[in-house]
Amino acid sequence: MKDIYQIAVVPGDGIGPEVAAAAVRCLDALFGPAGPLVLREHPAGAELYRRSGESFPAATYAACRDADAILHGAAGLPGIVHPDGTEAGLDFTLRLRFELDLFANIRPIRLYPGVRSPLAEVAPGGIDYVIVRENSEGLYAARGAGAQLRGELAVDTLVQTRKGVERIVRQAFELARSSRGAPADGVRRVTCVDKANVLRSYAFFRAVFDEVAAEYPEIEAEHGLIDAMAMYLVTRPGHYNVIVTENMFGDILSDLAAATIGGLGLAPSAEIGVTQGLFQASHGSAPDIAGKGIANPYGTLLSAAAMLDWLATRHADARLGAGARRLRQAVEAAIAEGVLGRDLGGRYGSAEITEAVCARLG
Amino acid sequence: MKDIYQIAVVPGDGIGPEVAAAAVRCLDALFGPAGPLVLREHPAGAELYRRSGESFPAATYAACRDADAILHGAAGLPGIVHPDGTEAGLDFTLRLRFELDLFANIRPIRLYPGVRSPLAEVAPGGIDYVIVRENSEGLYAARGAGAQLRGELAVDTLVQTRKGVERIVRQAFELARSSRGAPADGVRRVTCVDKANVLRSYAFFRAVFDEVAAEYPEIEAEHGLIDAMAMYLVTRPGHYNVIVTENMFGDILSDLAAATIGGLGLAPSAEIGVTQGLFQASHGSAPDIAGKGIANPYGTLLSAAAMLDWLATRHADARLGAGARRLRQAVEAAIAEGVLGRDLGGRYGSAEITEAVCARLG
Ligand SMILES: CC(C)[C@H](C(=O)O)[C@@H](O)C(=O)O
Ligand SMILES: CC(C)[C@H](C(=O)O)[C@@H](O)C(=O)O
Repeated sequence: MKDIYQIAVVPGDGIGPEVAAAAVRCLDALFGPAGPLVLREHPAGAELYRRSGESFPAATYAACRDADAILHGAAGLPGIVHPDGTEAGLDFTLRLRFELDLFANIRPIRLYPGVRSPLAEVAPGGIDYVIVRENSEGLYAARGAGAQLRGELAVDTLVQTRKGVERIVRQAFELARSSRGAPADGVRRVTCVDKANVLRSYAFFRAVFDEVAAEYPEIEAEHGLIDAMAMYLVTRPGHYNVIVTENMFGDILSDLAAATIGGLGLAPSAEIGVTQGLFQASHGSAPDIAGKGIANPYGTLLSAAAMLDWLATRHADARLGAGARRLRQAVEAAIAEGVLGRDLGGRYGSAEITEAVCARLG
Repeated sequence: MKDIYQIAVVPGDGIGPEVAAAAVRCLDALFGPAGPLVLREHPAGAELYRRSGESFPAATYAACRDADAILHGAAGLPGIVHPDGTEAGLDFTLRLRFELDLFANIRPIRLYPGVRSPLAEVAPGGIDYVIVRENSEGLYAARGAGAQLRGELAVDTLVQTRKGVERIVRQAFELARSSRGAPADGVRRVTCVDKANVLRSYAFFRAVFDEVAAEYPEIEAEHGLIDAMAMYLVTRPGHYNVIVTENMFGDILSDLAAATIGGLGLAPSAEIGVTQGLFQASHGSAPDIAGKGIANPYGTLLSAAAMLDWLATRHADARLGAGARRLRQAVEAAIAEGVLGRDLGGRYGSAEITEAVCARLG
């Protein structure tokens, strides 16, 4: 336990500043003026790159590395790219993942009471699982390293290591063991998603999964091929409990999963390593709606709650654990009472949603 | 135009023989005893591998190569694998794709009248697009070539070539130009799906897409990131017309898309190159329901119709074009009249569905 926790807040691009401001406002309201968090803002992103040629200043990197946790709005603007065609604004997230070894990207998928799923036959509470996305290797290991030859050919290499697969699979089983949730049939399970039928790297992922699974005999272990899983998350989302997969597949499945619970506006994420954590909503910077005051901040607020939980466990600090619970309950209450933005068929703006949550912090 | 077309029929594994038999029965009924097709069966698959150590005999390969078209049931059995952990039964499909250069995998996604989508707000006719999956390179180029080092590391390399991307993108635009269908807003469009924001090979795919798109100014060209697209196929399927993407992404999106129209049982595919075509349903061998007489043959029947269309165009043979129309109409009529299997909430078995289609061939 510490007296004070330094939080590096990076608003980023598009709607990033709006949703980050919402989180700062709620964290301030949660703990009051003498609270345990010190929130300090730092610049990064596509807009900064456009203005200065630098997307992720060294000072911001140092602040993130040295902070107790990092809270991010959103980053990236489609037109602002590096010479190789990839987006400059994504340097922040992607470099932090690799350089701070934030290997576990934890993405809870939950259909909240008060939200209608686009899936016809899903009952409230009928979707409640967690995607554990490997966040430090896989196809993303190729970022910045792929080759392009004379405009004739381009290659990127997918890498899976024993260490990388073992630790993410273990994380998934630990989560399945410790979480109170369970799928509709009451069976705790971890589903390994791969393409082991076609590619060696995924067959390797599966083989390592099977080894680790043997250490957890009380938890059901199953395999799903990525293509079939893309179907199953639509046709039987209630079956899943914890899903573990390679970086690229996790990227795809987590957006798909978010669609089934009402969209990315409700999907938080926690990217954690051994010494640091990055917390941001799963959504992007949505430049089309930026600056209009209509961005949905719930994903970021839920990510801030995940940050408090992570800090609470790491530093054995009950204040933060209690704060996480209050913040999460306030978000759930606001959603259940119909305080929804346009993305969910409601009429509330970012500021109104934020105040509604603050009013329910109790 | 030829007098006779040689069709290599490969039943394969699991439900493969059942759905292939359904197609053979309907093609026989369509043309009668003196028809233009000669259908001959050849062995391949996981079961054959288990018995003989050979998944894809040279004689079957030669028959497929030399036939006018190839009709496949389904292949693969999960436990039957090569030493590297990948599935032996898939050699048939995957080797044909690469060795016969079947570069375009055309997967129409259509919500048929009579079928309920799992998506709540989709009207009948509200989903009608085509996924054009690159079928000869991308991440699948690594099959059999990836490295695994001392159980510590595994790699697979994604390859995109200018030639490969150009020809698949051109195929997509030609399809958008020639097809009568159009999305809800009436705009003909081709959507390029990639992960250009993060990886060079996908940025390359997008750059080549943009070049080819410029040759088709009358068709709207747009980009979608794979993660966002996995969401959009759930939240706004009516927007899409023709989608073009890399091999692995196409694999994932086509199963997801099939889920939205009632499942893989209704999803045909046509894998075509310059000189040969392979026609099979998008589904796998479903060993859990094999031999029970309950497999849904519609996907294979629709694939057989696609085969007739392809042969009709290639050989300027109106008999085959008319046959394709009659077969497709019979399938659509049976579906619309509620002749559905268990996968779609109906009570009909494979044989009953097959006879219902034959009875409607007119
Ligand atoms: C913004 C982008 C780099 C990122 C990713 O591709 O991982 C995002 O889509 C995500 O899911 O976190
Ligand atoms: C059976 C398998 C090799 C195949 C693939 O992965 O391409 C299948 O999933 C498909 O979509 O055609």
